[in-house]
Amino acid sequence: MSFKPISEIGEFGLIERLSAIAAPTLKNTPGLLEGIGDDCAVYRTGGPSLQVATTDLLVEQVHFDLLTTPMHHLGSKSIAVNVSDVCAMNALPEYALVSIAVPGNLSVEMVEQLYAGMAHAAARYGVAIAGGDTSSSPSGLTISVTMTGQTSEERLTLRSGAQPGEMICVSGRLGGSAAGLKLLQRERTIMLELLRNNEPYDKDVMAELREYSEAIRCHLLPEARIDMVRFFNETGVVPTSMIDISDGLTSDLRHICRRSRVGAHIEEGRIPVLTEARAVADEFQDDALTWALSGGEDYQLLFTLPKAVYEKVSANREISVIGEILPEEEGLLLTDIFGMTIDLEQSAGGFDHFGR
Amino acid sequence: MSFKPISEIGEFGLIERLSAIAAPTLKNTPGLLEGIGDDCAVYRTGGPSLQVATTDLLVEQVHFDLLTTPMHHLGSKSIAVNVSDVCAMNALPEYALVSIAVPGNLSVEMVEQLYAGMAHAAARYGVAIAGGDTSSSPSGLTISVTMTGQTSEERLTLRSGAQPGEMICVSGRLGGSAAGLKLLQRERTIMLELLRNNEPYDKDVMAELREYSEAIRCHLLPEARIDMVRFFNETGVVPTSMIDISDGLTSDLRHICRRSRVGAHIEEGRIPVLTEARAVADEFQDDALTWALSGGEDYQLLFTLPKAVYEKVSANREISVIGEILPEEEGLLLTDIFGMTIDLEQSAGGFDHFGR
Repeated sequence: MSFKPISEIGEFGLIERLSAIAAPTLKNTPGLLEGIGDDCAVYRTGGPSLQVATTDLLVEQVHFDLLTTPMHHLGSKSIAVNVSDVCAMNALPEYALVSIAVPGNLSVEMVEQLYAGMAHAAARYGVAIAGGDTSSSPSGLTISVTMTGQTSEERLTLRSGAQPGEMICVSGRLGGSAAGLKLLQRERTIMLELLRNNEPYDKDVMAELREYSEAIRCHLLPEARIDMVRFFNETGVVPTSMIDISDGLTSDLRHICRRSRVGAHIEEGRIPVLTEARAVADEFQDDALTWALSGGEDYQLLFTLPKAVYEKVSANREISVIGEILPEEEGLLLTDIFGMTIDLEQSAGGFDHFGR
Repeated sequence: MSFKPISEIGEFGLIERLSAIAAPTLKNTPGLLEGIGDDCAVYRTGGPSLQVATTDLLVEQVHFDLLTTPMHHLGSKSIAVNVSDVCAMNALPEYALVSIAVPGNLSVEMVEQLYAGMAHAAARYGVAIAGGDTSSSPSGLTISVTMTGQTSEERLTLRSGAQPGEMICVSGRLGGSAAGLKLLQRERTIMLELLRNNEPYDKDVMAELREYSEAIRCHLLPEARIDMVRFFNETGVVPTSMIDISDGLTSDLRHICRRSRVGAHIEEGRIPVLTEARAVADEFQDDALTWALSGGEDYQLLFTLPKAVYEKVSANREISVIGEILPEEEGLLLTDIFGMTIDLEQSAGGFDHFGR
């Protein structure tokens, strides 16, 4: 057997190949509406509603570092990121199945804290943790959560429905998670340095972390925008396409464009960057807009709406209109605050686990 | 935070604690019929059918060894073990979500082989692989598969419905998987020895493995007994309780007894031990009955039936009647071929991942 390292084709390259292998199986069931390629799979179960299902893997040292991640937060986040995928279909979550592979250096109490965080988040989002599996792990904690939800034919929102002329909208503020991650990574370096020198960890060092509690919360305790799904239900507004921002605004907008066969134009000045992220970026001599565009893990919703519904959403201060859908051939464009327009297809995309 | 190692309370102890933490979340959804504690969660989705969902984690070095496990087989097994859980509810499988955490030493081709095995098994069981997640892994391959299926109110079979006086039945033959594992573990030792001595691996050594191909297949390529679910549907027979044998006959029968609040009496002479497992046990000077009782991973179905339906199932040579359900206070008894009766509550149970 030949050996092609996965890093050579990258995460998206691997997903593409595996999807091609799994594709023939999609014909094995008559009720499947949408298989691989959206935030959730969508299927009929004979009743009036549609079921959606998604799964997310959280791997120690890839997705989190236990030195800077409290177990309770980690549990909550593992539920929230799946709720976020369900919300991206304009669906409400229902059931979670939770599997964990636990290394020998974790105590019973730590795993209980993890589950307490999960149960806390489950209550918040109306989810029942209905099953799971446990295993030991030779090294590192792995958490796998699968979540189902339900919606209706009328409300179901895929990545593929965007049309030229529609508004591109985003919920909340971006860049907070990347800012929080930067702060935690710096903290981790300090901790390891102190450990190495056998010096005590001075809690006062945490003071400046407290100043940035919002950014850190964005990273450690992201909230799924279930309130947006409820807002859509209440106002009767149905987005024409939607995705949750897990890879980064650019990368996730690109997913919508590919699936909808459209182009897009967004304006830097309209992108809602978290104020605290700007402050952190200044401190790190980094660029908050870059974090907003490609930092990822903000778990806000990115969606498109016909201009006709503008009146219905304009009063919602959680929604920012950041641009417009274009015909496919016009590409994926960003106009900066100086009026310069660049093609984002040329810029770096979202986070790639296999580090291409 | 205090430190209680998980090995102190064992896998079932951990599951019990985590279930208690998750239990309050079961009230978060009105449609849930059965949460943690059976082979699958069971829930209504508004239609006439019931949905079931299960999840299984396969961790390298805990559940499999890549030295003796072909990727294609591993993919197939990861689907089959979940189908087996769905079948244990007297349900038919529909959708699978597959997540993998892949270490850097695996090639693209190996991961493709893994998925090809999954797709092959999915086709066999009528399952659509409708989604998933991929991640890199700092060490070791982890596979997480979640599967949904459907059944009806009338056919749903839980662990909790067994009644005193009913027949205890098992499908197929037991002990094969444990026998296969023993052979593969010996093979692994030989391989590592040769590797250490820089000697080539002689393919002739494999000759005696071929002799035991059935046992090895039982371990590497177990088949979920979807044919039994179809048999129940065709004959109109509905088991009163059912579980798949993943931990071992004793341990899984104990699960039925606990959930049904009954006792049980099984007879050694009636337990269908795989002929090849007896031959392997002789070679290893081990006991095939012990493997059948506590080896685990046979993925046969263990179920109970009222005596009134005996006529309907007696012609099916895949079904063995191995004993009878007793009142709870009589315990879990095994009568050996010499007529001696022992209480299995005192004997060692199934496989415990945390090695209590």
